[in-house]
Amino acid sequence: MKEFTPEYLEHLRKIIHDRADAAAREELADLHPADIAELYQDLDLEEAEYLFKLLDEEMQADVLMELDEDDRAKLLSKMDVADIAKQIEHLDTDDAVDIIQELDEDDREKILSHIDDVEQAGDIIDLLKYDEDTAGGLMGTEMIVVNENWSMPECIKQMRMQAEDMDEVYYVYVVDNEDRLRGTLPLKKLITHPSVSKIRHVMETDPVAVKADTPIDDVALDFEKYDLVAMPVIDSIGRLLGRITVDDVMDKVRDSSERDYQLASGLSGDVESDDKLFAQTKARLPWLLIGMVGGLCNSVILGRFEGGFVVDPALALFIPLIGGTGGNVGTQSSAIVVQGLANGSLDIKKSSRQLLKELGVGLLNGSIIALLVFLYNFFTLGAGHEVTTFAVSISIFCVVMFASVFGTFVPLTLEKLKIDPAIATGPFISITNDIIGMLIYMSISTWLIVFFAH
Amino acid sequence: MKEFTPEYLEHLRKIIHDRADAAAREELADLHPADIAELYQDLDLEEAEYLFKLLDEEMQADVLMELDEDDRAKLLSKMDVADIAKQIEHLDTDDAVDIIQELDEDDREKILSHIDDVEQAGDIIDLLKYDEDTAGGLMGTEMIVVNENWSMPECIKQMRMQAEDMDEVYYVYVVDNEDRLRGTLPLKKLITHPSVSKIRHVMETDPVAVKADTPIDDVALDFEKYDLVAMPVIDSIGRLLGRITVDDVMDKVRDSSERDYQLASGLSGDVESDDKLFAQTKARLPWLLIGMVGGLCNSVILGRFEGGFVVDPALALFIPLIGGTGGNVGTQSSAIVVQGLANGSLDIKKSSRQLLKELGVGLLNGSIIALLVFLYNFFTLGAGHEVTTFAVSISIFCVVMFASVFGTFVPLTLEKLKIDPAIATGPFISITNDIIGMLIYMSISTWLIVFFAH
Repeated sequence: MKEFTPEYLEHLRKIIHDRADAAAREELADLHPADIAELYQDLDLEEAEYLFKLLDEEMQADVLMELDEDDRAKLLSKMDVADIAKQIEHLDTDDAVDIIQELDEDDREKILSHIDDVEQAGDIIDLLKYDEDTAGGLMGTEMIVVNENWSMPECIKQMRMQAEDMDEVYYVYVVDNEDRLRGTLPLKKLITHPSVSKIRHVMETDPVAVKADTPIDDVALDFEKYDLVAMPVIDSIGRLLGRITVDDVMDKVRDSSERDYQLASGLSGDVESDDKLFAQTKARLPWLLIGMVGGLCNSVILGRFEGGFVVDPALALFIPLIGGTGGNVGTQSSAIVVQGLANGSLDIKKSSRQLLKELGVGLLNGSIIALLVFLYNFFTLGAGHEVTTFAVSISIFCVVMFASVFGTFVPLTLEKLKIDPAIATGPFISITNDIIGMLIYMSISTWLIVFFAH
Repeated sequence: MKEFTPEYLEHLRKIIHDRADAAAREELADLHPADIAELYQDLDLEEAEYLFKLLDEEMQADVLMELDEDDRAKLLSKMDVADIAKQIEHLDTDDAVDIIQELDEDDREKILSHIDDVEQAGDIIDLLKYDEDTAGGLMGTEMIVVNENWSMPECIKQMRMQAEDMDEVYYVYVVDNEDRLRGTLPLKKLITHPSVSKIRHVMETDPVAVKADTPIDDVALDFEKYDLVAMPVIDSIGRLLGRITVDDVMDKVRDSSERDYQLASGLSGDVESDDKLFAQTKARLPWLLIGMVGGLCNSVILGRFEGGFVVDPALALFIPLIGGTGGNVGTQSSAIVVQGLANGSLDIKKSSRQLLKELGVGLLNGSIIALLVFLYNFFTLGAGHEVTTFAVSISIFCVVMFASVFGTFVPLTLEKLKIDPAIATGPFISITNDIIGMLIYMSISTWLIVFFAH
């Protein structure tokens, strides 16, 4: 990994401000497009634009692809439609589609009409039809395809023609006369079986493939399960449509686990540490406001039981304990469900088993905590605080049981309703459990006050 | 992806219990090792063992590799050392090392002495020396290596010999006469440049490579940045030691983001939804107990200010609001730092900039929430509750400011001390902020009671 030191950046900025084209070109020559994209984060738009214009078209396209969406939008806004089209021609169709999808409707049309390679433009238009979150939305059409009845020499000749424009080739896909996917040909077979008469004798049959409408999360699980570097995409009758590469899948795996983590931490939207102050506030304030409303609800609930605090003011001291415990238990339970669903280890059909197990875990944890708190209060509060001592422990037990089941039930139900279960983690669960915890605590206290009064 | 229906499983169990070898073999024939491994989760050990013995040795090795660590341990415990050694011979060295690392010291020695292929055994012993969390611990030694001075026909001849035992080949690595890595040869060059006189004329120079002691997290970031499917590993003077494949990296990316998520949700250890009740309790009870101690601390803090509640009992009603807000803000701030460090978007050298930005976000969020709560309390509590109205809003503002800075500062400091910053998220941050929030609230209330009394 390249490290750009402050000294290097200063040196580079000097070159840029002197408009020393030759020196700047030299600095860029050894860099990978991903490194150049990273460099842009430390430069202002004008500096980045200057360097960008020095690159050749193919490199420009690669750098464009590696940039953050925001940085890319800024750079694209400085370019005219014909230039953008030229760069898109250098990209694989899946990457081209990603960039075009970020543009507004008008620009899309214009750019597509400027692409000279009609076949590529047609492929892009076809790919744009697929839902972004499915295999179809992730696939590209660049791949080497051979017929199962060809001989190896015929096949190699064809491959030589097809491979010309491709950066990397990992698999060769084998189809029948009706374009249906029949197998894959590992490249090493080219070396080990140079003169076989029919490809189908050496190809690997039963290739792992996905239908175009498969959700991306399932595609990712398949990649991980079968240790793939690329996967073919087929239509409903098995015809080969395109291929998905592992780098795109890996990005999706990171994105989706980051998203789950963010939701669990009360961050809405895609917020990063390098976002601007206003973007950060926008992503964070909503949950804080919901938390505020929850806290105010709790003040209303507690207000209705003010009489209880008069009987034993010690009751007020354990409000944070009850609320905190409910929040912690609920967060754990919901995280286990969300993660299990995301990595495929929890089957939605086994929901009732999961709920039952949570009941068991809740019973165990709830009993232990309730007992410890009872002993603590029994010895520290002393006589005259029976209501509080019993109310706190009984409430803790009930809150742990409720939070375990509720934290499991809600994400499972959302998943069944095809809503992202991750929204039911973090602040949602802890705020809800906080409020219900207070209700439980106050109800049990009131009941015990009456009970001990008799 | 294969789906095993309850009907299919019943059908299979019948075959197993009838000991119908031929029928069972037929069922297994079309399955991928990963599917067989998945099947084992629905079978008991005896059933799984029966099916396992019907597989040929290479398939046994592949299935073994795909199993969960627990299931694998169970199956291995039923096998003798010579059998295990035989299966390990069928695995790539990186996979072999993973399995051997799970065994105890005694068994390791025995199994290694039973491996007939001395070169493989030697490679495994070498690989076992690397730290598990570094590039060296993840690499395997199976790769095709050619000399930069060879011609393409010479190279193809060598590759034919070397590729014989390999499942998949994505890159050919090019070294000089001293075994130093000089470049990579994309397989498509075999097709497009069949008769070049020296490999170095067509190889790609400046390959992205990592040193053996590079931490795995950095390796993963490089894979993502440069969109790689495999990466060569070198020693400190650039000699080629092995290669890392993308499937292993992808597993690590998922593992480490799952781990961060678990820590943020108060789950210690690697807990999954399909773990047994006791394992779940063990992973969850520790944080709940810490939360309990935190809650009891709060009760002590509140107990010392009981006089305040006598002056205005309404003060007690806002305890959940103050605690909850501090917890929510702290969770957000720490999650942003942990995630930024994990995906490389936050540079530890820019810590002070991050702290400054958090101060800004805290100022904005704190002011908005404090103002809204002030208006609410002003209109609902009415006269006689000035202490509470002011104490709640001033405290909320202070709590948000403190939680923003503290939630940022703690993980950044841990990272600097080379401790995993993820332990400072979730329950840790919310419990700490809860306690400090109470201290702030109680101090400000006491001060305001004195102020308004004059």
